[in-house]
Amino acid sequence: MRFRRPGLALGGWVLLSFATASLGGLFMPGEWYAALRKPAWNPPGWIFGPVWTALYTMMAVAAWLVWKRGGFAAQRRPLGLFLVQLGLNAAWTPLFFGLHWPGLAFAEIVLLWLAIAATLFAFSRVSRPAAWLLAPYLAWVSFAAVLNFTLWRLNL
Amino acid sequence: MRFRRPGLALGGWVLLSFATASLGGLFMPGEWYAALRKPAWNPPGWIFGPVWTALYTMMAVAAWLVWKRGGFAAQRRPLGLFLVQLGLNAAWTPLFFGLHWPGLAFAEIVLLWLAIAATLFAFSRVSRPAAWLLAPYLAWVSFAAVLNFTLWRLNL
Repeated sequence: MRFRRPGLALGGWVLLSFATASLGGLFMPGEWYAALRKPAWNPPGWIFGPVWTALYTMMAVAAWLVWKRGGFAAQRRPLGLFLVQLGLNAAWTPLFFGLHWPGLAFAEIVLLWLAIAATLFAFSRVSRPAAWLLAPYLAWVSFAAVLNFTLWRLNL
Repeated sequence: MRFRRPGLALGGWVLLSFATASLGGLFMPGEWYAALRKPAWNPPGWIFGPVWTALYTMMAVAAWLVWKRGGFAAQRRPLGLFLVQLGLNAAWTPLFFGLHWPGLAFAEIVLLWLAIAATLFAFSRVSRPAAWLLAPYLAWVSFAAVLNFTLWRLNL
């Protein structure tokens, strides 16, 4: 897929990552989440919305920066990794908030972490800014994985 | 999320599954796929488009039928499974056609098969027609998994 105007393509990447984000919104953290035993360092609920909005925006810009270097034909591998991590990202929320399976969600977030790390590495060989734009995302998912693990173990 | 008019919600489910489908369209089977050694029973390329269009439409209707019985609040588990299988579905194309990793793609399609089977089972307890609408999808992914495995082994 090629666009004459790269600005339009940026819109496409933003749309794609926000569509993924909105899947997460289908499952609201409800009574189940409220009733979970939580660690002292569990962040307040209002933090997650703004943080994820920023992370999804940055990842869309990162993918666009890589895509600009020749589209899917030239950047098959880094963009392929990006879409794999996006699919894994989309699957986490239904596992945790939909199915209430924190154990399986933890296994899945470890795969997500690996996919993001691989994407960041592949992006760094194409565009340094694109790789940096993924760094906060990797950091946050590292934290989210630890939080997921802790919530799982505290509520067995 | 609740809608006054269930017809609008059907549009939402169709949009969601077609958005997933269109991710697959980002990676066109190109020279790499053309050059793969293929089994004699490899279907002609033109079959995949119509088949997947029908399967995505049926899965959207199935999810809608289940969703109609009380929305996400009441159908948390079947709809959660549905979204997990949709995320795994979205990740397969970039693994196979983007990264050209048929081995990892095969491991992933096995997980997808399990997620679809679990969704079908969960749907069958809410709506028989919804479960039947997923049956061709499960059958096709069974075939696709065998094809994926064969293409992987033939081209090591």
